[in-house]
Amino acid sequence: MDYDVVIIGGGPAGLTAGIYCVRRGLKALVVERGSLGGKVLMASEIENWPGDRHVTGEELSKRMSDHAKGLGVEFVYNEAIMLGLAGDVKNVTLRDRELSCKAVILATGGQTVKASVKGEEEFSGRGVSYCATCDGPLFKGKAVAVVGGGNMAVEDAVYIDDLSSKTYLVADEIKAEESLQERLKKSGVEVLEDSLSEIVGSEFVEGVRLKSGKDLEVNGVFICQGSTPSTELAKQSGVELDERSFIGVNRDMETNIPGVYAAGDVTGGVPQIATAVGEGATAALRAYVHVKQG
Amino acid sequence: MDYDVVIIGGGPAGLTAGIYCVRRGLKALVVERGSLGGKVLMASEIENWPGDRHVTGEELSKRMSDHAKGLGVEFVYNEAIMLGLAGDVKNVTLRDRELSCKAVILATGGQTVKASVKGEEEFSGRGVSYCATCDGPLFKGKAVAVVGGGNMAVEDAVYIDDLSSKTYLVADEIKAEESLQERLKKSGVEVLEDSLSEIVGSEFVEGVRLKSGKDLEVNGVFICQGSTPSTELAKQSGVELDERSFIGVNRDMETNIPGVYAAGDVTGGVPQIATAVGEGATAALRAYVHVKQG
Repeated sequence: MDYDVVIIGGGPAGLTAGIYCVRRGLKALVVERGSLGGKVLMASEIENWPGDRHVTGEELSKRMSDHAKGLGVEFVYNEAIMLGLAGDVKNVTLRDRELSCKAVILATGGQTVKASVKGEEEFSGRGVSYCATCDGPLFKGKAVAVVGGGNMAVEDAVYIDDLSSKTYLVADEIKAEESLQERLKKSGVEVLEDSLSEIVGSEFVEGVRLKSGKDLEVNGVFICQGSTPSTELAKQSGVELDERSFIGVNRDMETNIPGVYAAGDVTGGVPQIATAVGEGATAALRAYVHVKQG
Repeated sequence: MDYDVVIIGGGPAGLTAGIYCVRRGLKALVVERGSLGGKVLMASEIENWPGDRHVTGEELSKRMSDHAKGLGVEFVYNEAIMLGLAGDVKNVTLRDRELSCKAVILATGGQTVKASVKGEEEFSGRGVSYCATCDGPLFKGKAVAVVGGGNMAVEDAVYIDDLSSKTYLVADEIKAEESLQERLKKSGVEVLEDSLSEIVGSEFVEGVRLKSGKDLEVNGVFICQGSTPSTELAKQSGVELDERSFIGVNRDMETNIPGVYAAGDVTGGVPQIATAVGEGATAALRAYVHVKQG
């Protein structure tokens, strides 16, 4: 057996799972195809990691991965392309080799849906944000545009309107549920049936241009078009998804397959670092029980 | 309305809930009858708070409560003795006054069951521990006694035996489930049908004396007799408990009463700081939706 536990994904959920596994004396590997920290790396300023009033995403990612490395969690920068989960011995196929283990934790996260317009990448973290809960308070008293027409976009627009000087909601169509549309109507949010064409600025965002040609002077742009959980690997390995297309788990982070757990954004909970670490810890402690009973 | 959200309990779950509430623009109060930080304060050394390789319980509690205070969470050092939860307006009765709010988060934690023997308090944090997951690795290569006969005590003893030089399990009776008893038999743990009478040492724990008069030379004593969730207030207010006598919640931390949420140890999840903060964040964000829809 190569490992007790293989963890797929090195964001906060995966790193925390690793920390908990090795402290329990398990041999644990984290497989990361990009960079350790996951989406946290995109956060320029984090104000809701309990105990740290201000921390950058880069710094918190480094602290968490250093913590895991220091305790003996192993890492491989590679992609898991196939999982064999049915038996007591689980197989994890990487691009160049195959590993065996007793338990697998899926912490594959999700991909934020980008606006795919000019200026988006350039101003990411400098006025462009993908998380109103995380970054909303940084735009207190400023003008912002929220992009998207779903439940999350409308809720975020109404929330940000409470603290911004002016909030625009830009969407081809508002598809949010009725109660949210009611809240939107009662709010001060200006709804524009339009779509984003470009984000402009110098050092920070200074405005957006819409498809209609209209220009808005804003300091912040929230791209609230949801995220797509990274579930390809889970799906093709027989792990069941829930009705919202996230990996289905119970409060013990167990999936439908014994010895297979999931944690973090891929499970569709509140997409926050605080919840990801909680789920990672739970998954690891349950995986420990599974490994020792096997 | 005095507050949007009143949070009962100022441990990691309650403090995180406060942080998330005020960042969402809600007026939030934390009611704490003891000290901010809750059971975390009892931890001399924490090694599993992701991103901090070593931190004391006192330091982490202070960082979290300073964070909450800095953001504008309000605190009152008092006891909630009655809750009126049925209506849209919730009432929280403190010892000296009554408060109204739109949502309540119960983060009342639990009381660790003590051994109640001489030396226990004196050596708490200096060899006496109540959490094997948290403190087990600190006793690598040392001799330890685990006290308790339930599932958790047996699991902890088997786990600690992997890293200790010698592990004793002291219990009047082993009441753990069959599969754990099997693991116990296969382990190197020495089971003593006896009970603890005294913990001795100078600066740190040096041994224990049992009721039979037998002395054990150990450096660590794990009191693993479980904890009792603090649910009196919840019960008398109509909040339903689950079959294990913890507050019953779903993954959104909703209880059976609209606008009432629970988070942290009182919900019976893995009793870890990492999970408590995740539940606190989730409860706060759900409470926000409830407050704004109300």
